[in-house]
Amino acid sequence: MSTDKTGRLQNVNRRAVLGASIAMGSSALAAPAIAQGQGTLEWKLVTSWPKNLPGPGVTAQRIADRIQVMSGGRLTIRLFAAGELVPALGVFDAVSAGTAQMAHTASFFWQGKIPASVYFTAIPFGLLPHEHITWIEQGGGQALWDELYAPFGLKPVMAGNTGVQMGGWYKREITGLDDLTGLKIRMPGLGGEVMRRLGATPVSLPPGELFQALQSGVLDATEFLGPWSDRAMGFHKVAKTYYSPGFHEPNGTGEALFNKAALDSLPEDLRAIVLEACKAENGRALAESDWENAGSLQLLQEADGVTVLPYPDEVLAALRQTSAEVLAETAEKDPLAKRIYDSHQAARARLAPWSDVAMRRFMAARDG
Amino acid sequence: MSTDKTGRLQNVNRRAVLGASIAMGSSALAAPAIAQGQGTLEWKLVTSWPKNLPGPGVTAQRIADRIQVMSGGRLTIRLFAAGELVPALGVFDAVSAGTAQMAHTASFFWQGKIPASVYFTAIPFGLLPHEHITWIEQGGGQALWDELYAPFGLKPVMAGNTGVQMGGWYKREITGLDDLTGLKIRMPGLGGEVMRRLGATPVSLPPGELFQALQSGVLDATEFLGPWSDRAMGFHKVAKTYYSPGFHEPNGTGEALFNKAALDSLPEDLRAIVLEACKAENGRALAESDWENAGSLQLLQEADGVTVLPYPDEVLAALRQTSAEVLAETAEKDPLAKRIYDSHQAARARLAPWSDVAMRRFMAARDG
Repeated sequence: MSTDKTGRLQNVNRRAVLGASIAMGSSALAAPAIAQGQGTLEWKLVTSWPKNLPGPGVTAQRIADRIQVMSGGRLTIRLFAAGELVPALGVFDAVSAGTAQMAHTASFFWQGKIPASVYFTAIPFGLLPHEHITWIEQGGGQALWDELYAPFGLKPVMAGNTGVQMGGWYKREITGLDDLTGLKIRMPGLGGEVMRRLGATPVSLPPGELFQALQSGVLDATEFLGPWSDRAMGFHKVAKTYYSPGFHEPNGTGEALFNKAALDSLPEDLRAIVLEACKAENGRALAESDWENAGSLQLLQEADGVTVLPYPDEVLAALRQTSAEVLAETAEKDPLAKRIYDSHQAARARLAPWSDVAMRRFMAARDG
Repeated sequence: MSTDKTGRLQNVNRRAVLGASIAMGSSALAAPAIAQGQGTLEWKLVTSWPKNLPGPGVTAQRIADRIQVMSGGRLTIRLFAAGELVPALGVFDAVSAGTAQMAHTASFFWQGKIPASVYFTAIPFGLLPHEHITWIEQGGGQALWDELYAPFGLKPVMAGNTGVQMGGWYKREITGLDDLTGLKIRMPGLGGEVMRRLGATPVSLPPGELFQALQSGVLDATEFLGPWSDRAMGFHKVAKTYYSPGFHEPNGTGEALFNKAALDSLPEDLRAIVLEACKAENGRALAESDWENAGSLQLLQEADGVTVLPYPDEVLAALRQTSAEVLAETAEKDPLAKRIYDSHQAARARLAPWSDVAMRRFMAARDG
């Protein structure tokens, strides 16, 4: 890191600490002064979601509420929905600059400026939710994520999870690789690049325009999230074939970003409370997503006339091989990207056989 | 609940509150006096594990440490390993009586006095870890668990998870149902009952005697936990065939028990800290177990000459059918057991198809 960079970051950090609203006498500004019983602090939490958006929006609010309660009101988290203080995708820069102390968002939004950030949400044929959490917690993932964001004065942690994604909605059935040729599909990121190499035409559209685009024929197919969110979007009204698996995004980790200087300035108890609230939300949010996805999957099949199909084997094989090529290229960006790729590959090689023996065989035996 | 019972519980509750060590002036005994900045409190945590036993023992210590840090030292949790204050299986009664305020244990230990308690650890062909957490958090499981333990003045919550279990170690290969006849196997609880009905002879032995029993031929087969713990036990030195799936225990939720009166007497911030520390441990412990199980599975196969086999289809079909019969009988014990059975069945019917579409198909596609 250059001296200039370091200088900038020091300024950023100072602004972040000063930017926090201190609800006590100005003489009590230093960190120890907000220790137990001696004052209160207010943080700004900016999010990439509409207020209380089912899934991530609710997760962000729950984290704020838990911190408030666990801190006995010493640390109040004031939540700003997307656009209220900064735009949805402005939260990374806002927390880096100290405009807010904390953000709730998703790492794959930063692919444009930090390509390897996508590894901390999901990559094609990567890790399932419990495997991803294991890589971050036990397999060296957290240290790499920290290193990736350190130049921006940011500390990232997992905070919620929307679960495994579905493959998407198709207006006509996919019977083989030929059916991908010219297919106009909305699939962002690495999954979209895989589709492009197999002949499809990825179309970039914001969520609010997807339904109409699918209805009008601007799109032949679209992915979005899982049954819970997808049913709310109404896709089943204009496309009746729903594919699995969501090869491109097998996990949906929410990202909490902290201005590192602001986090470090907290007394030890409040810092632990903030981090533990995020950690507890991983299981809580995943349970909510799985419960709602499971219920919506039933409704889609039993009430809405939707057919849930697996991608044909020929298509899966091509998706798998092309995904491996696309992923290998992400490792060529820079040495840190290479280490992230290697760490993720090693975690997958270790965890996938265990998931197979322990979970896949169990599910097969249970279903009969 | 009878008047006598209520009277007893009131006494229990009073003892629990008084039993806590108050490290401050005796005039400050009431709950508000231990609010922020006004004093400190020490709780006793009794566990069913040796001190720092990999998995659950480490989980119990981590929960105690997190509470200490998050509470800024206002609530100290003094951990007693099995036998230090009460025996391993005496923790339920100890917390009920207020001898300790908290326990870390597993619900299936209480099957003898509360048959339905086993549902809150795992049942044959039941729920995988993420599904179990979902049932407890979203599917009504927590309310039923609370109701089951309310007569004892106890509040239970999930606290850690050792993951999916393996099917066990067999000294000879199982090629069909006939091979179960007369098989001397260690498999406690409902799984053992299923094996018994299929002709096997369940043998009840404590963990410390299993290795020698398997070596000497007192046992033909034994289950224990997963690859991490099983390898530490050395079973692979005397049996080379390791079966999956662990049909009898697809989940390993740790149980935190609170004396309800003691928990209720905490100020709101400390109560939230205690519960959130347990919740955060669910993901943390599962990640550790999965990482270590995955690594040990590799070692067993690559270094120790162990063959990992699936149970034959004929055996799985019989295990599945007999398990359904055994489970249906648990519902006949009393009306609450029936409601727990029904709730669990409904959660499984809702969640299993989603796990299948989202996870099983993904794992199959990833493996190719």
